[in-house]
Amino acid sequence: MTQASVLISEVGPRDGLQNCKSIMSTPDKQRWIAALAAAGLREIEVGSFVSPKLLPPMQDTGEITRFAKTLPGLTVAVLVPNMKGAEAAIAAGADKITLPLSVSETHSLRNIRRTHAEVIEEAGQIAALLKQLPLEKRPHFEGSLSTAFGCTLEGPIRETVILDCAERLMAAGCDEVGLSDTTGYADPAAIRRLIRAVRQVVGPENLTGVHLHNTRGLGLANVLAAYDEGIATFDSSLGGLGGCPTAPGASGNVVTEDLVFMFESMGIRTGIDLEALIETRLIVAGALPDEELYGFTPKAGLPLGFRSAPSSAG
Amino acid sequence: MTQASVLISEVGPRDGLQNCKSIMSTPDKQRWIAALAAAGLREIEVGSFVSPKLLPPMQDTGEITRFAKTLPGLTVAVLVPNMKGAEAAIAAGADKITLPLSVSETHSLRNIRRTHAEVIEEAGQIAALLKQLPLEKRPHFEGSLSTAFGCTLEGPIRETVILDCAERLMAAGCDEVGLSDTTGYADPAAIRRLIRAVRQVVGPENLTGVHLHNTRGLGLANVLAAYDEGIATFDSSLGGLGGCPTAPGASGNVVTEDLVFMFESMGIRTGIDLEALIETRLIVAGALPDEELYGFTPKAGLPLGFRSAPSSAG
Repeated sequence: MTQASVLISEVGPRDGLQNCKSIMSTPDKQRWIAALAAAGLREIEVGSFVSPKLLPPMQDTGEITRFAKTLPGLTVAVLVPNMKGAEAAIAAGADKITLPLSVSETHSLRNIRRTHAEVIEEAGQIAALLKQLPLEKRPHFEGSLSTAFGCTLEGPIRETVILDCAERLMAAGCDEVGLSDTTGYADPAAIRRLIRAVRQVVGPENLTGVHLHNTRGLGLANVLAAYDEGIATFDSSLGGLGGCPTAPGASGNVVTEDLVFMFESMGIRTGIDLEALIETRLIVAGALPDEELYGFTPKAGLPLGFRSAPSSAG
Repeated sequence: MTQASVLISEVGPRDGLQNCKSIMSTPDKQRWIAALAAAGLREIEVGSFVSPKLLPPMQDTGEITRFAKTLPGLTVAVLVPNMKGAEAAIAAGADKITLPLSVSETHSLRNIRRTHAEVIEEAGQIAALLKQLPLEKRPHFEGSLSTAFGCTLEGPIRETVILDCAERLMAAGCDEVGLSDTTGYADPAAIRRLIRAVRQVVGPENLTGVHLHNTRGLGLANVLAAYDEGIATFDSSLGGLGGCPTAPGASGNVVTEDLVFMFESMGIRTGIDLEALIETRLIVAGALPDEELYGFTPKAGLPLGFRSAPSSAG
């Protein structure tokens, strides 16, 4: 059930930069994204089509999306909070759009002032819009179940609420759902339990990716648990940049560098050149000198005799 | 095969303090060890019976061992590099002694100037000494296979060499062997593979504990892999203090706070009061103000609605 290769979806340019104190310039974003693609990243979440007033670091998402689309073989993913964002994403040519639905309704109301029903209705409108597009221009549409492992406002969320959200997102026309540990509350047992439960509702083929944080140091252990369940797509961010601005103290995505090191060490292919990936930290450090970059592998260096996973199985 | 509860063996007072820039005073060590025991730690490696000239921070290990023996219900573990150390450990009343054998012979020669054969011969002498003691005074004797997942001098170590070391340590009279990722080279797949291989040679009952580092951020993922294989004893150190002085850049034990948080979140009992454990950081921070304390859980705080594992199964 586990995979010989995994897809690492770099979310630093979106989840990382939207939570930074300072704003990365458009040329720096372009250099960084191009360097990530050159290092072998095949999917990058490049921005969020949200109001520039709410999130100034994301104001150039249209331009960045169009730039990223010029990079060969790259799946260009973006976050969209609503129909307006989806329209902008389509106009810019995004390959994948993700609509977050916070399974904590309290968090949803606090964050975007919408109930579950309102977000799911908008998911249906977005799906209807997408269906009008010719297939080759239709972005993949993911509904992301955020705060799935608990919320800093509500605490644990009842599983029935999560399953209901998953089912309704699929019914509204999403191509798949994802699980997001927005608050860094997840543990490996919860990961296994919730993946199994959601897959029972939506089918295993409609839950293939997770977005995990490293808030309490469990990021890679949670990734391992999800991988063991057959999950094949993992969000992470270079240097662990990012987190959730409306979840206090909940900063820190899984670190891409350590994640790639783990999988490659295990013989599971990521397609990423780890040394080239680590070099892209210099771009971020130069562009955002006040930002702390996490990650143990870049500091410790690669083990003596380290070899990436062989490029073909067997 | 997995356990409803695990034993966390705190190695900070040994592996942590022997690698610190400054020396913790005897009274501070006593306060810290007493606070750890009060927080629910049931096994603590309190020091190393090594030459005080080689490792000045360990010079009071005899006094610390005798102090720790006054704490009710605590298994007092110590490291011994040789026969002389074992004699001192017995005299001080240690409950458990661990003799390291570096499976990298290069590392062994560099570190303690001994070949495998010499260390194994000494293991036999120690075992013979222990057999002369009445059962109730006989400490448990572990042979620890260090650099088991690779060496900064040799790189990966051939599995046949590791299995040979394990078999010979058992034949020499050790009660069990342990696996130690001295250099932080391990990954979850290597953990699973080596645990299975060593258990095939020594029997599952004679490999029950692992000593893992967090050098490249994989510490808890590696713990999870070992737990899934049925390992029930995990070394870790408060604040991730420590590492290996002869393995450059290889600092950082698994962080006890994050480890306890992971297991308790999963519903696996450690018997440790996490908040009391985190409070003991203040003792270390006060005694060693220049030392960096790692750990994400202490900084992020516990999740809203967090509950420890229930004290009885079911």
